[in-house]
Amino acid sequence: MNRAVTRVRAAYARIAETDRPEIWIDLRPRAEVEAEAAAVPDYLPLAGTLLAVKGNIDVAGLPTTAGCPSYAYLPEADAPAVARLRAAGAIVIGTTNLDQFATGLVGTRSPYGAVRNALDPDRISGGSSSGSAVAVALGIADLALGTDTAGSGRVPAALNGIVGLKPTYGVVPTDGVVPACASLDCVSVFARTVAQAERALSFLADPAPAAPARVPGPWRIAVPRPGQLGELAPGWEAAYEDATRQLALSGAELKEIDLTPFTEAAAMLYEGAFVAERYTAVGAFLDKANGADETPAPGATGGDLDPTVAGIITRARDLPAHRLFADQARLSALRTAALAQLADVDALLLPTTTEHPTLADVAADPLGVNARLGRFTNSTNLFGLCAAAVPAGTVHGLPFGVMLIGAAHTDDRLARIAETVTTPPTHVAVVGAHLTGQPLNGQLLSLGAEFDRTTTTSPAYRLHALPTAPPKPGLVHVGPERGRPIEAEVWRIPAAGLGQLLTALPRPMTLGRVTLADGAEVPGFLCAPEALHDAPDITHHGGWRAYVAAQRRG
Amino acid sequence: MNRAVTRVRAAYARIAETDRPEIWIDLRPRAEVEAEAAAVPDYLPLAGTLLAVKGNIDVAGLPTTAGCPSYAYLPEADAPAVARLRAAGAIVIGTTNLDQFATGLVGTRSPYGAVRNALDPDRISGGSSSGSAVAVALGIADLALGTDTAGSGRVPAALNGIVGLKPTYGVVPTDGVVPACASLDCVSVFARTVAQAERALSFLADPAPAAPARVPGPWRIAVPRPGQLGELAPGWEAAYEDATRQLALSGAELKEIDLTPFTEAAAMLYEGAFVAERYTAVGAFLDKANGADETPAPGATGGDLDPTVAGIITRARDLPAHRLFADQARLSALRTAALAQLADVDALLLPTTTEHPTLADVAADPLGVNARLGRFTNSTNLFGLCAAAVPAGTVHGLPFGVMLIGAAHTDDRLARIAETVTTPPTHVAVVGAHLTGQPLNGQLLSLGAEFDRTTTTSPAYRLHALPTAPPKPGLVHVGPERGRPIEAEVWRIPAAGLGQLLTALPRPMTLGRVTLADGAEVPGFLCAPEALHDAPDITHHGGWRAYVAAQRRG
Repeated sequence: MNRAVTRVRAAYARIAETDRPEIWIDLRPRAEVEAEAAAVPDYLPLAGTLLAVKGNIDVAGLPTTAGCPSYAYLPEADAPAVARLRAAGAIVIGTTNLDQFATGLVGTRSPYGAVRNALDPDRISGGSSSGSAVAVALGIADLALGTDTAGSGRVPAALNGIVGLKPTYGVVPTDGVVPACASLDCVSVFARTVAQAERALSFLADPAPAAPARVPGPWRIAVPRPGQLGELAPGWEAAYEDATRQLALSGAELKEIDLTPFTEAAAMLYEGAFVAERYTAVGAFLDKANGADETPAPGATGGDLDPTVAGIITRARDLPAHRLFADQARLSALRTAALAQLADVDALLLPTTTEHPTLADVAADPLGVNARLGRFTNSTNLFGLCAAAVPAGTVHGLPFGVMLIGAAHTDDRLARIAETVTTPPTHVAVVGAHLTGQPLNGQLLSLGAEFDRTTTTSPAYRLHALPTAPPKPGLVHVGPERGRPIEAEVWRIPAAGLGQLLTALPRPMTLGRVTLADGAEVPGFLCAPEALHDAPDITHHGGWRAYVAAQRRG
Repeated sequence: MNRAVTRVRAAYARIAETDRPEIWIDLRPRAEVEAEAAAVPDYLPLAGTLLAVKGNIDVAGLPTTAGCPSYAYLPEADAPAVARLRAAGAIVIGTTNLDQFATGLVGTRSPYGAVRNALDPDRISGGSSSGSAVAVALGIADLALGTDTAGSGRVPAALNGIVGLKPTYGVVPTDGVVPACASLDCVSVFARTVAQAERALSFLADPAPAAPARVPGPWRIAVPRPGQLGELAPGWEAAYEDATRQLALSGAELKEIDLTPFTEAAAMLYEGAFVAERYTAVGAFLDKANGADETPAPGATGGDLDPTVAGIITRARDLPAHRLFADQARLSALRTAALAQLADVDALLLPTTTEHPTLADVAADPLGVNARLGRFTNSTNLFGLCAAAVPAGTVHGLPFGVMLIGAAHTDDRLARIAETVTTPPTHVAVVGAHLTGQPLNGQLLSLGAEFDRTTTTSPAYRLHALPTAPPKPGLVHVGPERGRPIEAEVWRIPAAGLGQLLTALPRPMTLGRVTLADGAEVPGFLCAPEALHDAPDITHHGGWRAYVAAQRRG
């Protein structure tokens, strides 16, 4: 069984386990995906990588809906972005839910259902790339494609504790993507680590101009003047300060800038005439679906339109062109002011968004909440910049994310800086059912974990066979006089995955500190003391795998 | 008396002589200009250069009207474009008439009167920089500032037989200029020769990025595929072919391209939503002046609005922003197609405009004629290109002009190419009142003539003192046995100036072939045979200057 098939099976197990049907618009049948996976040679660079694709991007043979059933068409070919990842070995598992016509940052504006947050189902996933972000955060997919016009590839990354890269405009082709604002739309990437997202981007991107030359030295990072972030959720300003401090401690030089041009431009996105570009994209369809025209589109009933989205786009029909020219001139002045401040820094560090609303919050004030969520993301595309949104710890148990924003074609540099600010993966020692080839190994793969090394514990442990289903060992620390080295594997688990692992951990298993043969101490699977009653000591086998083999032989 | 004062006196004489009051919105009093000229040191690079300024560009102390009296304001400072030429020694003589709010290519849309063509008063000057172009063509000013949004700096250059340079967007500041379409507007330059216009541009321009690197070799010139120019005035296609042939004979390599992207973009300028930018600029003023608003602007009566202009701009109020987005996307695709074709050439050669309408033609069909005139110029600014319009001979006795269009920041290169295609200045031999220091020398200066050399005729001429006012000599060819060498000066007169000189030539003076001492044959002043009755033979003085000196002594 090749890597891809192993991965597919783990994913469908995870789909069943997580029970989040609203993630998908079209989830491909497992058998079909598995058959496709079986044909992927292991030598392909993305072999074993599962890809979820936002429902406004063409996947050959699946309807492109943009979140609106009556808008759907059946594309004959993959969008280039999809085709490039497939050519590198990735397997498409389905198309994901989104705020209809990619209009929203909330993830609730869809007739396919509101997408619940990966970590707290009472809260929003964020959007518009809602299903893509949650599929990655829950470990179902390894990579997902989103789109980002005003923050749709970053806000859901922040709210689900994953990485979202919004490349420079034009770097990833948008052919085969339903336009939201054609002059701003970018295909974006979700993954659980910066490295995984960057690797995907290396296959997605057209050959790009070299990044502007940079004087070697510490990163120079812009941060807003005190007080310019505005109101944030409780604890979020402190979390942002922590990220800033972490960058400074890593040697970065901080420079305070005036955030006003960024936030003023952000406010223009929906208050001004720019929203009319959404009418350019799908206005004629909406008018027909709404019956404004005497010849309705075939199949368009209006019943599957999201009322908030339809309202926003339909109202944009009457915005005058002369106001758009005025807004474009004002935007040009703000862009000049913004870019001047970024000229001598490598990136601007901001919180990715402002708060983590509940589904009820959004229902009560759909437009107000949405506008607040875009305060920091809306201006990036308007200014022609690129951005990397990364997890930066948690606040009150939920993910907090920050964003690095940089000049066009500094995508690689942003990724480098982002790695210094995001929570690094955690090393975890496994000794039983999570070992390579054992029944729960797929769970690690689903969480984005990567294999690090095979080793043993220090000679201070004993191993017991627990009466669980599936059978698992219980590792217990007994001190060097009484123990032995036990076979172990070390895996690297992304921050978001570790929370999932811990949340899913069944009694009597625990995670605690484990000392390895080389003296390193890493978190690892242990068991609660009460579990050792009636659990035979199997230490003399030297490890779980040897014990299982002996049982089979016996 | 310094150069500047000499030039000012000649200009005001020319103003009186040409009797074209509609050129000016505010012509400064001669005494004031002369006093200012007296203070200009001769060492300044533009000392002795008279400048006319289009009425939508600020000149400190003169009202900026944009062709609409009730819109006028009194600027405290010169626009940077004006200030830079003044700092180099140029003298402003007044502000010139224009199509109101720079909206038009005809020169007739102004409450200050339709501007008549410099060479044929039944025909239009072209616009919108109408007064500026005619002031230069008639030799009143040496340089004029125009603006060019869709061809306003080039169409009137072509129709009046002068040079018009439309620099790359942003190279000359547009501060202090009443916007037409702020995202397209350029300050442009008129002069009688490429060299004069380029020299002015060197003072006007901000430091510009270097032109794209060029492989050395012959000029590579794009020309449209056969049949793509569309309908032109009788004889104009042949004149265009002549210009093309002249370039090819000079060594240029020609490449046929598809003109469609250029002409399609041109058609979008007034048919699409782009015209709404004019409403952004002055729509609120027009609405108040039209009484559409309950609080009329002070002094705005609506009575001084040009009905065609007001109609165009007011109708643009209701153009929707979603259509502008669609147009901008379409334009972007056309721009890509156009620029790809220009990538391996130095310039595109086109006729500057399509025909030379009469004032009556425009009155009968104000919008249709205007649209046709912009067929080749409208797309230049939309595509971010630069252009040089130059005279290229005459057709049926009226100027014909061609235009070189090139990539952004290739302004200098276009000027070089333009010099090879435009009609070179004509050498003219003068022997009497046009000699340096003599009464009519100012006429040569007004026509943009430049001094070449002092010489004599071959020894085959005799000179007579004609009983004219002012007194002039009559030069007559008698053959080497009977004549003597006569003192002569050779001047270089731009093509447009030569027509003026010939048109203004009073009986019994003629222009005909004159053989010089070195055997060169150039056009020169002669006289009709009947004038020699009662005209004393003064050949023995050797020249007019010696004769005049002897008369004074006598």
